Amino acid sequence: MQPKRQGRPPTIANARGRILEEAAAQFAREGYEGTSMDDIAESVGVTKAGVYHYFPNKKEIYEAIIVKTLEGLLRSVSAAIAQARDPEAALGTFMTAHADYFEEHHDAFLTMLVAFGGMQNVVMIAEAQKLRDDYEALLRNIIADGVSDGTFRQVDVRTSSRAVLSMLNWMARWFKPGHGRRASDFAKDYCDLLLGGIRT
Amino acid sequence: MQPKRQGRPPTIANARGRILEEAAAQFAREGYEGTSMDDIAESVGVTKAGVYHYFPNKKEIYEAIIVKTLEGLLRSVSAAIAQARDPEAALGTFMTAHADYFEEHHDAFLTMLVAFGGMQNVVMIAEAQKLRDDYEALLRNIIADGVSDGTFRQVDVRTSSRAVLSMLNWMARWFKPGHGRRASDFAKDYCDLLLGGIRT
Repeated sequence: MQPKRQGRPPTIANARGRILEEAAAQFAREGYEGTSMDDIAESVGVTKAGVYHYFPNKKEIYEAIIVKTLEGLLRSVSAAIAQARDPEAALGTFMTAHADYFEEHHDAFLTMLVAFGGMQNVVMIAEAQKLRDDYEALLRNIIADGVSDGTFRQVDVRTSSRAVLSMLNWMARWFKPGHGRRASDFAKDYCDLLLGGIRT
Repeated sequence: MQPKRQGRPPTIANARGRILEEAAAQFAREGYEGTSMDDIAESVGVTKAGVYHYFPNKKEIYEAIIVKTLEGLLRSVSAAIAQARDPEAALGTFMTAHADYFEEHHDAFLTMLVAFGGMQNVVMIAEAQKLRDDYEALLRNIIADGVSDGTFRQVDVRTSSRAVLSMLNWMARWFKPGHGRRASDFAKDYCDLLLGGIRT
């Protein structure tokens, strides 16, 4: 990650970010095969040479979206749970903050989920896996803390953590932003269900 | 659905089924774009004309896999839960039977999940949506029965049903058949977690 700068970022950083954003929208709408470097250049409002200045090819843009999205997710959810007073609040905050990030960066998030398994650039694969592992560790630590302080039952940390992420990530399949309830409303329902269980 | 026949099915039905099976394996391995009618014909061991005898194009094969997989899933899980003695057993059986079907028809299941949203044939879309709706109703009825007979808390049926299907379907992202635990083992863990909840 780059150090935080004061004021307006330099044109080069801005253009890079806008390329990733517009490309994510195209990928989400048209798929990887259905998106060309021309389409991306046109939607950003730069020449194709301008896009090639930042990325050698379409695949690099695709994979950069994955890394940027995972970085943003990890940063955003970490900041949110830092405020939580106990493991139960932390779990709820993890789930709603994840859902908020997903909803706010919907195109990039969908691209990240679709593209993760087919990455080819070994450096970016390593980066993406590290970010994913750190993110999963964040959640597992919340559950492990709750088990050890007695807030949670002696649940299996891996199973519980996988259950949480499955419910959140599967939203990508059916949730449409801007139609009534927020993603975080569904995340909250899931959290209540998971905490309390179904059985009487 | 065709009526069940005694003995070996006629060559025509057999060839159709084998085309769908081999095509699902190719789609799962190479993706839709990466699979040609030639590849499918070769893997089945028939001429390309032989494949065209059953399906006018690759897209029809793709969509026929979706419908066939949903039919099989609905039939298989319905049969399993018909034996369950109460809503709690039914929920567990729904989840493990789903996981078994997913594991046993892994390529077709992945193809179905990937392809469902992009269907184009209106007749097959209607069929697939009907099968999916019937399948979801099966699960919602189990949960509603449990709520009304007091086995389950007054949980929201839609939320709970979506939670169950999210956990089961997300397995497509990480579960690899033939490496240790069965999909149904994970499904059982999820079911125990959901029933009992995380909170002490």
